[in-house]
Amino acid sequence: MSDSKPIETHIESLGEAKIKTLLLDDSIGTSKEMFKSDKDRILIDVNAEAVLEQIKNQQTPTTFELAGPREKIYFDPSKLKCALVTCGGLCPGLNNVIRAIVLELYYRYQVKHVYGIRYGLEGFIPEYGHNLVELDPDKVVNIHEMGGSILGSSRGPQDIEAIVDCLERLNIGILFMIGGDGTLKAATKIVEEIKKRNAKLSVIGIPKTIDNDIFRVAKSFGFDSAVDIATEAIKGAHKEAEGYPNGIGMIKLMGRHSGFIAATASLAQQDVNFVLIPEIDFDLEGENGLLTRLEKRLKERKHAVIVVAEGAGQNFFQDSTPEYDASGNLKLYDIGIFLKDKIRSYFYEKSMDVTIKYIDPSYMIRSLPANPNDHVYCGFLGRDAVHAGMAGKTNMIIGHWNNFFVNVPIPMTAGKRKRVNPKGKLWQTVLEATGQGNLTNQKPE
Amino acid sequence: MSDSKPIETHIESLGEAKIKTLLLDDSIGTSKEMFKSDKDRILIDVNAEAVLEQIKNQQTPTTFELAGPREKIYFDPSKLKCALVTCGGLCPGLNNVIRAIVLELYYRYQVKHVYGIRYGLEGFIPEYGHNLVELDPDKVVNIHEMGGSILGSSRGPQDIEAIVDCLERLNIGILFMIGGDGTLKAATKIVEEIKKRNAKLSVIGIPKTIDNDIFRVAKSFGFDSAVDIATEAIKGAHKEAEGYPNGIGMIKLMGRHSGFIAATASLAQQDVNFVLIPEIDFDLEGENGLLTRLEKRLKERKHAVIVVAEGAGQNFFQDSTPEYDASGNLKLYDIGIFLKDKIRSYFYEKSMDVTIKYIDPSYMIRSLPANPNDHVYCGFLGRDAVHAGMAGKTNMIIGHWNNFFVNVPIPMTAGKRKRVNPKGKLWQTVLEATGQGNLTNQKPE
Amino acid sequence: MSDSKPIETHIESLGEAKIKTLLLDDSIGTSKEMFKSDKDRILIDVNAEAVLEQIKNQQTPTTFELAGPREKIYFDPSKLKCALVTCGGLCPGLNNVIRAIVLELYYRYQVKHVYGIRYGLEGFIPEYGHNLVELDPDKVVNIHEMGGSILGSSRGPQDIEAIVDCLERLNIGILFMIGGDGTLKAATKIVEEIKKRNAKLSVIGIPKTIDNDIFRVAKSFGFDSAVDIATEAIKGAHKEAEGYPNGIGMIKLMGRHSGFIAATASLAQQDVNFVLIPEIDFDLEGENGLLTRLEKRLKERKHAVIVVAEGAGQNFFQDSTPEYDASGNLKLYDIGIFLKDKIRSYFYEKSMDVTIKYIDPSYMIRSLPANPNDHVYCGFLGRDAVHAGMAGKTNMIIGHWNNFFVNVPIPMTAGKRKRVNPKGKLWQTVLEATGQGNLTNQKPE
Amino acid sequence: MSDSKPIETHIESLGEAKIKTLLLDDSIGTSKEMFKSDKDRILIDVNAEAVLEQIKNQQTPTTFELAGPREKIYFDPSKLKCALVTCGGLCPGLNNVIRAIVLELYYRYQVKHVYGIRYGLEGFIPEYGHNLVELDPDKVVNIHEMGGSILGSSRGPQDIEAIVDCLERLNIGILFMIGGDGTLKAATKIVEEIKKRNAKLSVIGIPKTIDNDIFRVAKSFGFDSAVDIATEAIKGAHKEAEGYPNGIGMIKLMGRHSGFIAATASLAQQDVNFVLIPEIDFDLEGENGLLTRLEKRLKERKHAVIVVAEGAGQNFFQDSTPEYDASGNLKLYDIGIFLKDKIRSYFYEKSMDVTIKYIDPSYMIRSLPANPNDHVYCGFLGRDAVHAGMAGKTNMIIGHWNNFFVNVPIPMTAGKRKRVNPKGKLWQTVLEATGQGNLTNQKPE
Repeated sequence: MSDSKPIETHIESLGEAKIKTLLLDDSIGTSKEMFKSDKDRILIDVNAEAVLEQIKNQQTPTTFELAGPREKIYFDPSKLKCALVTCGGLCPGLNNVIRAIVLELYYRYQVKHVYGIRYGLEGFIPEYGHNLVELDPDKVVNIHEMGGSILGSSRGPQDIEAIVDCLERLNIGILFMIGGDGTLKAATKIVEEIKKRNAKLSVIGIPKTIDNDIFRVAKSFGFDSAVDIATEAIKGAHKEAEGYPNGIGMIKLMGRHSGFIAATASLAQQDVNFVLIPEIDFDLEGENGLLTRLEKRLKERKHAVIVVAEGAGQNFFQDSTPEYDASGNLKLYDIGIFLKDKIRSYFYEKSMDVTIKYIDPSYMIRSLPANPNDHVYCGFLGRDAVHAGMAGKTNMIIGHWNNFFVNVPIPMTAGKRKRVNPKGKLWQTVLEATGQGNLTNQKPE
Repeated sequence: MSDSKPIETHIESLGEAKIKTLLLDDSIGTSKEMFKSDKDRILIDVNAEAVLEQIKNQQTPTTFELAGPREKIYFDPSKLKCALVTCGGLCPGLNNVIRAIVLELYYRYQVKHVYGIRYGLEGFIPEYGHNLVELDPDKVVNIHEMGGSILGSSRGPQDIEAIVDCLERLNIGILFMIGGDGTLKAATKIVEEIKKRNAKLSVIGIPKTIDNDIFRVAKSFGFDSAVDIATEAIKGAHKEAEGYPNGIGMIKLMGRHSGFIAATASLAQQDVNFVLIPEIDFDLEGENGLLTRLEKRLKERKHAVIVVAEGAGQNFFQDSTPEYDASGNLKLYDIGIFLKDKIRSYFYEKSMDVTIKYIDPSYMIRSLPANPNDHVYCGFLGRDAVHAGMAGKTNMIIGHWNNFFVNVPIPMTAGKRKRVNPKGKLWQTVLEATGQGNLTNQKPE
Repeated sequence: MSDSKPIETHIESLGEAKIKTLLLDDSIGTSKEMFKSDKDRILIDVNAEAVLEQIKNQQTPTTFELAGPREKIYFDPSKLKCALVTCGGLCPGLNNVIRAIVLELYYRYQVKHVYGIRYGLEGFIPEYGHNLVELDPDKVVNIHEMGGSILGSSRGPQDIEAIVDCLERLNIGILFMIGGDGTLKAATKIVEEIKKRNAKLSVIGIPKTIDNDIFRVAKSFGFDSAVDIATEAIKGAHKEAEGYPNGIGMIKLMGRHSGFIAATASLAQQDVNFVLIPEIDFDLEGENGLLTRLEKRLKERKHAVIVVAEGAGQNFFQDSTPEYDASGNLKLYDIGIFLKDKIRSYFYEKSMDVTIKYIDPSYMIRSLPANPNDHVYCGFLGRDAVHAGMAGKTNMIIGHWNNFFVNVPIPMTAGKRKRVNPKGKLWQTVLEATGQGNLTNQKPE
Repeated sequence: MSDSKPIETHIESLGEAKIKTLLLDDSIGTSKEMFKSDKDRILIDVNAEAVLEQIKNQQTPTTFELAGPREKIYFDPSKLKCALVTCGGLCPGLNNVIRAIVLELYYRYQVKHVYGIRYGLEGFIPEYGHNLVELDPDKVVNIHEMGGSILGSSRGPQDIEAIVDCLERLNIGILFMIGGDGTLKAATKIVEEIKKRNAKLSVIGIPKTIDNDIFRVAKSFGFDSAVDIATEAIKGAHKEAEGYPNGIGMIKLMGRHSGFIAATASLAQQDVNFVLIPEIDFDLEGENGLLTRLEKRLKERKHAVIVVAEGAGQNFFQDSTPEYDASGNLKLYDIGIFLKDKIRSYFYEKSMDVTIKYIDPSYMIRSLPANPNDHVYCGFLGRDAVHAGMAGKTNMIIGHWNNFFVNVPIPMTAGKRKRVNPKGKLWQTVLEATGQGNLTNQKPE
């Protein structure tokens, strides 16, 4: 058995960490045992058979490095300047992560210069004229009570060289980037540009996606809070559906490529009869099509509730010209409006009176403050991001795996995506709970 | 000063109430003094000068009869059958009113036969095939925890004779109708048909309008709960607006003809910069137009929040052909979508990047359970409706005026509408809070 | 009919208001018609018969002056300094009132010097060493999201002369006092001392009592929010009571002298079997005593829920020596603990196993942020307090009566108390809802 | 490397499962791949080094069997009767687990006879006279909206033989026991008695502890919901503390032997200055004692917030005679009241005025409905319990480990306890967040 770490989970570093971490004032009572070493690693796969098989074959199982404070740090806190940026759509917990990073830098490491970059990557580009915000404990101590991001955000890429120019002008040592897949890709490009310039600049990501679709991250922050409120929308749609003869309540939820919110919320509030997610195609017409099934349901029970993830059913738009948003994300066709119209005309043609109530709670969810569970989680993410940055690590994110916080190389996760497994426990349970069946006329393989 | 009651506030009655109200079991401890007489009346107008002037002119000031139990009742509880119907759109508190009516009939008056009519007026019409629901304490005791209506509802009128046929077939003595202006008009027609047939059938209304626009009713049930959640939508829109450069958050709230929800919610969550209500016209273009003002606001503060009531700005659609919904209500053009498009194209032409986030929380609000305040209120409405019906009163609703529950004749209120007074305290305070100014290019008179 | 205002509702004034109120910037769009005159008055009593009787007897009915802005003001905004103090126990809405006062002074009247006095009346007394807080829009704009008072509070009187010394030292023109009955009494003494000194200093009160017991004020701020959460405690107690054989859930709620919270919350969450309030004595022992009735209830239904206001049952402690708290309020014996012990030993002696779960949510309620309804209400109170002070009025509070905000002389309300009427609609409905009966062995008169 | 399963994680079974699981109606669309085999196992320890070391030493790492449906079942659904009991203190989620078990038995396995045992183990004993409840989908479909347990509960052991007598009389095949450590011990005794009698009766536990202290279970249901509301209590205490000069807010939270709720809630609402948990002793007096530190904090910041777990500081009561409750749990002395008194007299002696506000939200928390996160979690627990029982497994609980639901033998977990590790990430972070230091005068080793 070889001792070498598998390359893909090895964390890059700016150089040797030589400075002793300031022990917190003794009166705080923290213990030296909280320091982690890069050799503290956890197995990624916990399938016993698979691991034993690997070992039998002389393969080293893949592992993640534990996140957390290191005994030696790379940066001199008294001279260090840090920057922090939030990118992409809003998500519950952004302010909580900002708060945790600032407080940890300030109190634990005595780093007094932390700059907030306004409005996402735009904030690095002089042409936009956005000011910097100096962040200190006073400014952040209460921000977790509010949704949104005190820094603001924006979508879309910016010129990588201009970003690094800005970082150098500001003399930044660690850049914390809170954002989704596009942001992580930008982070890696920034790292490459930094290397070209031989700069001593660490880039640490905190993965943000309300859709919970980060590859190799068990749960992303804000997901829990999102499900909390999504259930309220389902409750409302259910009551509206029950409220009228042949009432149909339809809720469009977040989920561009992964249906975790739709599936989980449908288990959290089991009033749902049809869940449509991006991972699973469905037919509208034909014996097993959604419309036929919906008609059957209405005839039996007089009402129906449909949850549709925003990325579901994109196959219906295949012939349309693709468009992209500022972040370069494929613009999704509005499956909610599409379905509402299809349902309306289907029953109109059948002369069957139905009442459709459509709820799109997206921006009420995205702008929420984090719930207590997410607040605790964001606190750990922010603190561990600081620990990683201070130790000189770079090109990595803080992840959560097998109940441990871990350091994950960005190249291992960016560009990939976690998705609902149609044969896994989550989706099979949704099928049981809804009784919706396979909404397709093709024979399953 | 004459003793005669002004005709318009006099409550119609089926005949003399001769049966003694069952005193509650002494062990309950209620007091005989809780009985009200029809002579217990309150002044409608409390403006001191106006009242004194009237009296000087030998006019009797207009008064409302107090709601509440009467010592003698008209119906024999042991033989009485009652029916209950909920009509029109959902509104927080419907189940609370149903619950209060059923429990009061059952426990206080020992009326054991209460039928719930399903799906609004449709439920009276055999062709629809909706079943009756027998209601008893077991069925209703927990329904106030849920939004919606356990009976369901529907929009639109039904044949009045067919309704009264059904009531006679069921041998109903009191019909409780929970609904809005259309329902109250139907109630009066039902009363007329009943009179033609010389039937002994009381019709008692409980006015329902989430818009709070019932004439001569200070506050309608559900309004408070609606404002509660409308503020959450405003918070969300504010965070979304702040979240992006030139961010615009827009919330469409209920309010077909009256802007009470929009105005009140904007005072409850003072993040709003523009409130648009049906009572006040506004311009889009020109120096004072919304678009110009919005541009100014964005340039100064980088974000803006707009609340628009669904009935605002209907003048922009004057040239379109009017359409009507099933209830005969004028179908409103969607001012929310219209504004969103106008704003988008205005800034597009100016090459000014803006981000618009649009929230329409209507069905999440309408389907809410009532908050505690509304629950208490609905309890009184339901119990007083029962007292009125048992006393043989008819063609009336339960209102709330000067902090008293009162019996109000339907003809006095139906077809009229309470609206926000542009020069009154509420709207003037909204103007102060938003600083929005007169969004019109016409000189004020 | 005489034109003279009845003395007891006449508002004192510092002198003639000669300065024109700055019209708000035209762009705000407010209307001159929002100005009120001192002659705009509303009837206090709306009982039609009583009012007509009075008039027949040549008596002028008592009226309240409407609150609101006056066309002329007494103070010159450019020179005016104002102070603001919160006294007594916490109550939802304190920060909302502070916010409204500061914003109205600042934006509407352009008063730029507003001082917050810290920790109640203590803050006036140099010996305590509490600093002043300068208040401006930045400091207050978000405080309504938080419970408590940003100024802090304290109980108990302080030397009146020392208070006025402080006000003079600070050159204060208007003092806003937010507090309960003790505070209003102090306010009147401060007014007297000011008169002695011939100072031009207005004192405006905003009545604060979570108990809702201010005489001649229909509802005090925070009450609604308190009931909201009190219902959660009742729900909890009910579930605990149902959770065990012979389970008893007991909730102690606020209400030193008036049982409004206990009574209203018991209607808002109708799981309660016994409500005990200060207005109504009850027996423990004997045929009708609480313990006997409780035993009966347990035998019939296996669980029971009791709500007790903190001021109920004080007769049980008559032989104990009275104690007073720092505010001079009679210290109440803890009826909750007393009852819990009595119940426990009663059933112990009867060898009947019971489980008692006791909930005292007081400080979770008092420290709440205001709900949206209360926020709107507090906004009006604060703004009208400012209007009154600017107009040179003094020795008054802002009240709410017949749905109007009114100016009420402190001497008319202080020292009196609004209480639950045992024969009125609220309590009679509680009796109906609980079925608790008269818990006394004395024959009712 | 040996293939043999380590004995301690092997699940007992009643016998060979021979009956094919009814495939759900094809229209449901569930997949055969959702079946798990007993050989699907996950590693317990994920520490990479430890696992590799074990393997090098020819030891098989310990593994858990995956929970989930099996292809073959042991019981014939058409003849099977099941029973369900909830024991010990209330906890959010009890009804959710009941609901999931009943619905899964009914719809998935077509088991139509499910009995609810009332009031915990008492319900088995004829002397108590508690009735059985027949459970079906109608009875349980909405119960997750409510806190508590629809079955009720009780504390304390009952005669094991009498329990098994009752099970045999009812002809029960699977008994589901939802309860804490005491219940799991009883479960094992019941299993032993069943074996003696050679009965074919499976006993499946769902571990319930609001304290989250079940050994080898990462998170127990209800914990999340408890933290949600505990944070509200902390917010309240913080506002009360800030509200008065030298204000002290103290919150007593659940946690008899493990301080997870106290520690987690203090991270979820970081207003806390001192967290006291059972795992860590503290001194009151002396340089580092709580009282000295509290005085210091008040002098610096004028207010302080203390969270104390109910089981903290039991060493202060060492000289008192131990008492036990009905469940045989050591009765804890009330550390909350004890501390409140100690603090009061300490500052009294120092003539320092302080205000202490004490909040004990325990029964408001225990009686809560589960939050959406917990509802999803309880759903999986309940369904997996049914799968295990149907497969003929026994003497086990459903656990959650490394993000998988697993079958855990009761003997492996009962009698042990998960506790907060004073040197682990959670507690070290609490120390950082509070800055409380070691509250002990002993030198740390």
